[in-house]
Amino acid sequence: MALAIELAKWDNPIFRSYVYWTGILCLKMLAMSALTGLTRFARMTFANPEDAIFSKAKVKYDDQRIERFRRAHRNDMENIFVFFPIGFLYVLINPSAFLAISLFRIIGIGRIIHTVVYAIFVTPQPSRLLAWIFPYLATGFITLQVILYAA
Amino acid sequence: MALAIELAKWDNPIFRSYVYWTGILCLKMLAMSALTGLTRFARMTFANPEDAIFSKAKVKYDDQRIERFRRAHRNDMENIFVFFPIGFLYVLINPSAFLAISLFRIIGIGRIIHTVVYAIFVTPQPSRLLAWIFPYLATGFITLQVILYAA
Amino acid sequence: MALAIELAKWDNPIFRSYVYWTGILCLKMLAMSALTGLTRFARMTFANPEDAIFSKAKVKYDDQRIERFRRAHRNDMENIFVFFPIGFLYVLINPSAFLAISLFRIIGIGRIIHTVVYAIFVTPQPSRLLAWIFPYLATGFITLQVILYAA
Repeated sequence: MALAIELAKWDNPIFRSYVYWTGILCLKMLAMSALTGLTRFARMTFANPEDAIFSKAKVKYDDQRIERFRRAHRNDMENIFVFFPIGFLYVLINPSAFLAISLFRIIGIGRIIHTVVYAIFVTPQPSRLLAWIFPYLATGFITLQVILYAA
Repeated sequence: MALAIELAKWDNPIFRSYVYWTGILCLKMLAMSALTGLTRFARMTFANPEDAIFSKAKVKYDDQRIERFRRAHRNDMENIFVFFPIGFLYVLINPSAFLAISLFRIIGIGRIIHTVVYAIFVTPQPSRLLAWIFPYLATGFITLQVILYAA
Repeated sequence: MALAIELAKWDNPIFRSYVYWTGILCLKMLAMSALTGLTRFARMTFANPEDAIFSKAKVKYDDQRIERFRRAHRNDMENIFVFFPIGFLYVLINPSAFLAISLFRIIGIGRIIHTVVYAIFVTPQPSRLLAWIFPYLATGFITLQVILYAA
């Protein structure tokens, strides 16, 4: 029972899987920033007067392409930033390796698909709903397991 | 002095309390997503054209009920996502158990009350101010303790 | 290879540096909340009807001073909340101390400058672009190192 943090070691496949998917999702979120910034340049649409230094540039808050990136990015923050701490704590309750690694994969792959269907190739529903709900339920399950263990 | 991460073990009541409240707050934040999504359906008010597939559905960014959920959720992100990492590091500086567990409770209970008075039963001020400021000051105190220890 | 979490100890200068800069950046983000809240009072501009209890108070979502704070704060969330988990995992892959501590300093100092030139003393570009891009690239480098190690 006293064991916890010792599970955060590189020869624990659950920990490695958590670290791998956390890294991938961090990279994905960093990519969102770059994508939004580059699209601002391409569309000459900025959020601050001091950014609009080119003659055709404008300050505008309702460009549908950029606002879509921003909504996808915010949805990432709402969901992925919950997974990062709770996923780490989940490793420490020594779950079944098959279950834990499967859940991390659902969350990692699901969130990548979510970005693709939300912001890259806008796809009819329920594609985004499904890409959101599987990682959401997996994160919720992980959270409940951690609470039950610690309570 | 060298000890740090060894404190993250299940028989350390401070660590358990941190994990418990982190889990509860993750659950609370996941609930915010569901609440916003369900309210979007109930009010047929969506943020993307591809979501508005029902005949009465509309795309609208100023529905006061939904925007209130979104403000409450953003306030969670601004505050709770600071608590998650700094609360974990605070466990590792070996604080007084009574103090640490009390601070975690103030943050956990305070943030739940914040959501209730902000988004569920809208309550006159200063209820939301108080529900915000106690967790805020507790998080600030924890942060200062961690900085002083690591400096 | 199996070692990982043992590196999170107080006599590891990389871990101490990570904790120090995480604390500083948490403090900086908490300061953003206070700054926004105080500016709302100074300008009598609020986001909720129940906050506008003074006779001159108004509910308004396009006050340029306050929206600037909110954009700076959101940019913090997009970037700093990625650094917190990935910086911690980076400590656990046992990087070069000089490199790791330099990267943490670039991120910490860069993000403080970012807030100053974005929200405190609005400064012509490319000051904010530079203050954003160095921490961004440092975080991206850290993320790649962690992924390569865990893969």
